Amino acid sequence: METSITNSLSIGDYLIKRLMDLGVRHVFGIPGDYVLGFDKKLSESELEFINTCDEQGAGFAADAYARLKGLGAVCITYTVGGLKVANTTAQAYAEKSPVVVISGSPGIKERHKNPLLHHMVKNFETQLKVFEELTVASTVIKDPQTACDEIERVLSACCRYKRPVYIELPRDMVSVPIVERRGPPEKEDVASDPNALQEVLGEAIEMINQAAKPVIIAGVEIQRFRLKDQLVKLLEKCNIPVASTILSKSVVDECNLLYMGVYEGAMGHESVREYVESSDCLILLGTFMTDVNLGMYTAHLDQNKTIYVTSERTSIRYHSYEDIKLEDFLQGLIDTQIQRHKPRNFPRPKPPEPFSAVEGRKMTVSRLFQGLNSFLADDSIVIADVGDALFGGSDLFLGCETDFISSAYYTSLGFAVPAAIGAQLADPGRRTVVIVGDGAFQMTGIELSTVAKYKQNPIVLLFNNAGYGTERPLQDGPFNDIHPWNYSQIPKIVGGGKGFVINTEDEFEVALAASLEHKEGFSLLNIILDPYDISPALERLTSYLAKRVHQS
Amino acid sequence: METSITNSLSIGDYLIKRLMDLGVRHVFGIPGDYVLGFDKKLSESELEFINTCDEQGAGFAADAYARLKGLGAVCITYTVGGLKVANTTAQAYAEKSPVVVISGSPGIKERHKNPLLHHMVKNFETQLKVFEELTVASTVIKDPQTACDEIERVLSACCRYKRPVYIELPRDMVSVPIVERRGPPEKEDVASDPNALQEVLGEAIEMINQAAKPVIIAGVEIQRFRLKDQLVKLLEKCNIPVASTILSKSVVDECNLLYMGVYEGAMGHESVREYVESSDCLILLGTFMTDVNLGMYTAHLDQNKTIYVTSERTSIRYHSYEDIKLEDFLQGLIDTQIQRHKPRNFPRPKPPEPFSAVEGRKMTVSRLFQGLNSFLADDSIVIADVGDALFGGSDLFLGCETDFISSAYYTSLGFAVPAAIGAQLADPGRRTVVIVGDGAFQMTGIELSTVAKYKQNPIVLLFNNAGYGTERPLQDGPFNDIHPWNYSQIPKIVGGGKGFVINTEDEFEVALAASLEHKEGFSLLNIILDPYDISPALERLTSYLAKRVHQS
Repeated sequence: METSITNSLSIGDYLIKRLMDLGVRHVFGIPGDYVLGFDKKLSESELEFINTCDEQGAGFAADAYARLKGLGAVCITYTVGGLKVANTTAQAYAEKSPVVVISGSPGIKERHKNPLLHHMVKNFETQLKVFEELTVASTVIKDPQTACDEIERVLSACCRYKRPVYIELPRDMVSVPIVERRGPPEKEDVASDPNALQEVLGEAIEMINQAAKPVIIAGVEIQRFRLKDQLVKLLEKCNIPVASTILSKSVVDECNLLYMGVYEGAMGHESVREYVESSDCLILLGTFMTDVNLGMYTAHLDQNKTIYVTSERTSIRYHSYEDIKLEDFLQGLIDTQIQRHKPRNFPRPKPPEPFSAVEGRKMTVSRLFQGLNSFLADDSIVIADVGDALFGGSDLFLGCETDFISSAYYTSLGFAVPAAIGAQLADPGRRTVVIVGDGAFQMTGIELSTVAKYKQNPIVLLFNNAGYGTERPLQDGPFNDIHPWNYSQIPKIVGGGKGFVINTEDEFEVALAASLEHKEGFSLLNIILDPYDISPALERLTSYLAKRVHQS
Repeated sequence: METSITNSLSIGDYLIKRLMDLGVRHVFGIPGDYVLGFDKKLSESELEFINTCDEQGAGFAADAYARLKGLGAVCITYTVGGLKVANTTAQAYAEKSPVVVISGSPGIKERHKNPLLHHMVKNFETQLKVFEELTVASTVIKDPQTACDEIERVLSACCRYKRPVYIELPRDMVSVPIVERRGPPEKEDVASDPNALQEVLGEAIEMINQAAKPVIIAGVEIQRFRLKDQLVKLLEKCNIPVASTILSKSVVDECNLLYMGVYEGAMGHESVREYVESSDCLILLGTFMTDVNLGMYTAHLDQNKTIYVTSERTSIRYHSYEDIKLEDFLQGLIDTQIQRHKPRNFPRPKPPEPFSAVEGRKMTVSRLFQGLNSFLADDSIVIADVGDALFGGSDLFLGCETDFISSAYYTSLGFAVPAAIGAQLADPGRRTVVIVGDGAFQMTGIELSTVAKYKQNPIVLLFNNAGYGTERPLQDGPFNDIHPWNYSQIPKIVGGGKGFVINTEDEFEVALAASLEHKEGFSLLNIILDPYDISPALERLTSYLAKRVHQS
C-alpha cells in the first residue's frame, strides 16, 4: 500500500488513486445522477471512462479486462445501473475474475425518514444485499473515518480471491475528505501452514515420483493467480505432460512441447481422454471440477490417483489439507526433489493445416474453425461466446502468445462482443478475434457501437445457425428459433466497421483475409450455417452419449 | 380458484393453467437448458411464448403487459437469464407491476454434494436470495406435495400486492405430477377493519364536506388495483377536481371535465400547482409520494390538510389508521353522504392545437410534443422512456381511451421499446407510440427485432439529442455523450419497419403521417434535436430552481 496519502484527498480521489496503484487504467460504465460526481472525478483523472451502450456491456467488458490485466472496474448508478450488472458480476464470481463494482447511490443525508427517492426498490439496502450474494466483499462508504479502511479491505479481498467486490459510494461522500487513516491494515495471515505444506509436498512428491504415467491438468486459477511462469518451470523440471480444461485453454502455451490439449471427457479428443484417464497420477492444479470442464460428466477421473490443489482446497486421494496456498504448493514442487520423468509418447494437438477453400462449397462449422485456425496470428486474443462457438473453439490450435477467453463455466450468452472491448483496452497491441453465435450476438452484439466509438478493430465471426443451436439437440421447439438479422449491415448503423456475408468457403477465405488487412475498424463476418450443423467437439460428445445410451 | 384440478396434472402444467386462469396469454423470455422442459410445455399450451433478443427485453415487456393486463410473466433460465431480469423485476417492485418471474434451475436430484453445475454462482440458493430482495413472495418448487400450495401462495401475493413474485422450477420438477392437493388455501383476512373504516370515513367525509376547495390527487394504484371506474363514480358524485401524478398520468381520462392535469410541483403547470397547493383539503388516493412525483421536491403539500390513502397506509393529517383497504375507502366515499361540491373554476389541460409545420424550421423538443399531440389517436398507448421523453410527455393531452405508461418512479432507462412489445400483445387493437431518448434506445432499442418478429407496428419517436440530455444540466462531461447511430437504418437490419430521419418540422409532419398510415410494421423516427434543448416541463423546473437559488 502507498503511504503518501494525505488527509486532503477526497474519498472519490482516494478510490481512483488505489485503482491506479493496482494497475487499472480504464473504467467501464454508464453515468446516472447518483454517480455523476464520481464520473466527473473519473473524467478528470488518468483513468479513462469507457461508455458502453448498456450496463451489461460494461460489466462484461470489465470482466474480460480483469482477466487480462489482473483487475477491472465497472462504474454505474444505483439499481437501474447496478442491478443490470448483477449477471455479469455473478459470472465474475463464478469464474474468478477480479472486478470492482462501483455504484453511486443516494446520499446518506438524503436517506433520513426513508423517502421514496427514484431508483429505490425496497429500501436503501436492497442493492447491497443483492451484491452480498454475488461478491466476495462489499461495503457502503458511509463515514469518512472508515472510508479508507473499507476501500482497502474490499480491494484486498478482490485481489486475494480474484473475485468481484462491491463498493457503494453515496453521492454525498464522493468529495468528502478522508478525515483519518489508520495506516495499512494488519496483514492477514494468508501464508500456507508450513507443517501442512511440508506434509502435503512430501506425500505429493512421493506419489508423483513413483508414478509411471503422471499427468498435470492445469486449471484456470493458474491464469487468475498469475502462476503461468511457475507452471512452466515445473513442467521443465518434471517433464510431465499437461492438459488444460476448456475454461483454462491457453493457460499453457499450446506450442509447449509437453502440452497435450484440452481434457474435457468425451467432448475432448479421444487420445487426450484415454491418456488422462489411464494415468496413474493426476495432478490437478487450480482446476475447477465443473460439469462443462468434465465434458458434461463424461469424464472419468479416479480420485484414488488424484492430487488436487486449488486456492480453495487441497486434497490427495480421499484426504484433504487445510491452509495450503496454490502458489506455495507449486513453488514447493519446483524447489524440492521432484524427479524428471522419462520421455513418453503422449498426444499432441494437431497444428492447423493451411486452409484451402473449395469454391462454392457451403460453409460448415468444422470448416469455419479450420479456416480460422490457419489465419490466427500467434499473439491473438480469442474470445469465444457460449455454445458451439466455445465447444468448437476448444479445438483451435493457438499460437504461443494467444489468450483464449470464455465463459466456459458460468456460460452466460452474450459475453464475447463486450468482452472484446475490455480485452483490446487491456492489451491494445494484439488483435482480438470473437467467435459468437447469433443468439448471443442478439443480446449484446450492438456493443459494436462501443467498439466503433473507441476505434477498436476486433474480427467478429458470427456463427449464424438461425437459433440457439446447442439447445436443439436437447429439446427443440419454436423457442429456439431467432429472428433473422442482416448482421453485415450493422456497420451502417454504428459506423467504424466492415460487414461481410458468407455462404461459401471461398467467401470466407476472402473475408478473413480482408478482415486481417482491415486494421482501422472492426470486421463482422456473418457466416451462414446449417441450423443443425455442429462442431467436431459437440459431435464427439453427442456420439459418445449415444453410444452410452445404446450400451445401457 | 378452480376446483377441477386432477392429480394427473404435472407441476409445469398446473402453473401454466393457473397463469391462464389469471388472464395471462403471453409469456416473455429466452430459453436455456434448465428451463427447456417448461418451455416445451409452454409451446404446447395455449400460452404464447414470446422470444426477445435479451432477457432484459423480456422483463420490461412482461412489466408493461402486467400493467395493462393485470398480470404478466417472464420465463428465463437459471442465473444467466434470471439475474438479467433483476433490474426489470426491481422496477416492477418499485412501481407495483404484478410480474411472475419463472426461472428454470438445476434439478433437485442434481444438487447432491453441491457439484459445480454451469450457471452456478455461490450455491444453489444464490438466485433465490437475490429475488427475495426484489419480490413480494418467492418459492423454489422442491416437492410435489407442496407445489400447488406454494404456487397459489406466491401467485396470490402477486395479485394482492401488485408486485413481482419469483417461482423457481428445478428442471426435474416440471413433469412431476402433483401428488396431493389440500384444496384452496385458507382465505387470508384481507378485508378492512370495519370499525377503523367507519372512523376514517367519518373523519374524511367531514373534512371533505367542510372544505371549500378540495382536490383529489389520483395515484397509480388506482390503475394497478383496477379502481378507475370507482374513481369516476366518486368524481361524478362529489364534483371535486382531480389531478394525476406523472407516474399515474392517464389514470383519469384527460377528457374528464374534472381533470386538471398532472400535479408535479414546479415541473407541472403553474396553474395546477397553484390550485393544488392552495387547496384546503387534499385527497391523495393511491399516490406514491416519490421525488419525481413531487417534482424533485418542489411540491408543497400541507400534511395538515391531507387525507392520504394507499394500499399500504392510511393517514389523515398527522394520525394514521391500520387495516384500511383503498377500494373499501373509495367505495365508502361513494356510498356515504359525501356532498356534491359547487362548481368552481379550476385549471384544465389545454387540448392540442392543430400542428402546422414551418417548412425548414429545425425541430425542437417543444414542437416534437406539439406535433405528436395533434396526431395522437384517442385510443393510443403512449410509452415514455426516462428522461425528457417522460418529462415532456407529461404535458401531452391524451384522448379518452389513451394509456400512458412510464417508469416515472424507478426511472430505468431502456424500458420503452421492450414495453411496447408487451403493451401491443396485451392490447393488440390499439396503436402504441413510444417516446425514447437516444441513450435509452441504445440500451434496448434493438428489441425492435422482436417487434419485427411478431409483426407489431409501434411508432417510435427517437428523441436524438446526442447524449444523456437530462444529466447535462446536473453535471456535464464526455461521459454524457453517446456514439451517433444511423438509427433510421435499423429496419435494414431487423426488417419489419420503416425508418425516417427528421431535421425539420415539415419532415416531422410528413413522417408522422406516413407512420400512422404504415400499419404493417414499426416506424422509427430519428428526430435530431439540439443537445441542450429541453422540454417545457423541464424548463419550468429549471427556472423555478434557478429562482429559488436566486432568492436564497
